[in-house]
Amino acid sequence: MNTLLIGATGGIGQALARHLAGRASRLWLSGRNGQILAGLARDLSALAVPAELGHELEVQALAEEVGPLDLLLYAAGAVQKAGVREQNLADLERLTTANLTGLALLLKYARFNPQARVAVLGVYPDLVSVPGLSAYVATKLGAEGLVNVARKEFRREGVRFCLVRLPAVATDLWAPLGGAPKTALHPEVAAVRILEGVLAEPMADMLEIR
Amino acid sequence: MNTLLIGATGGIGQALARHLAGRASRLWLSGRNGQILAGLARDLSALAVPAELGHELEVQALAEEVGPLDLLLYAAGAVQKAGVREQNLADLERLTTANLTGLALLLKYARFNPQARVAVLGVYPDLVSVPGLSAYVATKLGAEGLVNVARKEFRREGVRFCLVRLPAVATDLWAPLGGAPKTALHPEVAAVRILEGVLAEPMADMLEIR
Repeated sequence: MNTLLIGATGGIGQALARHLAGRASRLWLSGRNGQILAGLARDLSALAVPAELGHELEVQALAEEVGPLDLLLYAAGAVQKAGVREQNLADLERLTTANLTGLALLLKYARFNPQARVAVLGVYPDLVSVPGLSAYVATKLGAEGLVNVARKEFRREGVRFCLVRLPAVATDLWAPLGGAPKTALHPEVAAVRILEGVLAEPMADMLEIR
Repeated sequence: MNTLLIGATGGIGQALARHLAGRASRLWLSGRNGQILAGLARDLSALAVPAELGHELEVQALAEEVGPLDLLLYAAGAVQKAGVREQNLADLERLTTANLTGLALLLKYARFNPQARVAVLGVYPDLVSVPGLSAYVATKLGAEGLVNVARKEFRREGVRFCLVRLPAVATDLWAPLGGAPKTALHPEVAAVRILEGVLAEPMADMLEIR
């Protein structure tokens, strides 16, 4: 199972990487934090493939290096807290890259083996539609729209898509929001449930984790 | 009723402008096509305020020029047909600007009178989630997410939001898609129904036009 995990240095990403290490014949890890990425790859006998998700040529090179995939997990993501009136355009673009454009570029260049699976970590739209999260909600919902179209386009290649709806998970993503809520899921628990669902046969189009 | 119509030179935009002309005490029209915009403003005794929606300073200047609004209608939009594998990044950015970032910037800088209304033209997500429309669907759903958060943030200012779900409307937007379907709504009919809903008291949070 040739597997690529995007966003491997985030809280959920690291947990996913550890749980994938025993199952993937080859595990490619990509993420923003080069130091964490290198350590994680070494610990798990995985392959580190850092790439800037907003940079088309880097994503293309990444896709070529990893070759045809059986599993692509998109766990990259960025969040920011700002009111609509205070929204900085540079931050909006940063979130757009991490949450949406990076996924679009990966799907543009990735090659897949028959019956390959793509899983994208998403949200419960109603849960995150709160003041201060407009850029986050817009880009996460955008990614959901992209998945719903890609699912149809890639069907003839035999590629299946799973949109994973996640509740709050206790990761550093919450730092700019003042910390995760007390009810937040532990990233280990989230990772186990994600992989259970994504590796199930058949895989559901949507996986709702509570 | 100080009114700003964004996307006034599009098919629905022009129809909206004509139907607004008798009702708005002051009607500001913005759009991409400068020649059509100038002619339309002259014909309707409206005020032309061209602006590049991706350009923050232009949007800011526009918002200052029009002053506190009673009605903001966001009818700008761009579409493109391309498979996920053929998606050009420049096109994705163009659609992001027209369908999402332009709205974010307008909401950032617009000033509103109490009880003001904002209406954003949207889609039926299931209807447009078809092969070739990933960039369109992603950016339109993104705008929907933005509206759902902005609605909550602006409530304390007394500003109300209406997301208008539109079926296919026979406009030039369909040109890159090979023409509108035969069942498409005439833009005049769409405009009448949009304004009926948006000017109703109370205005619905979501207006589903069939």
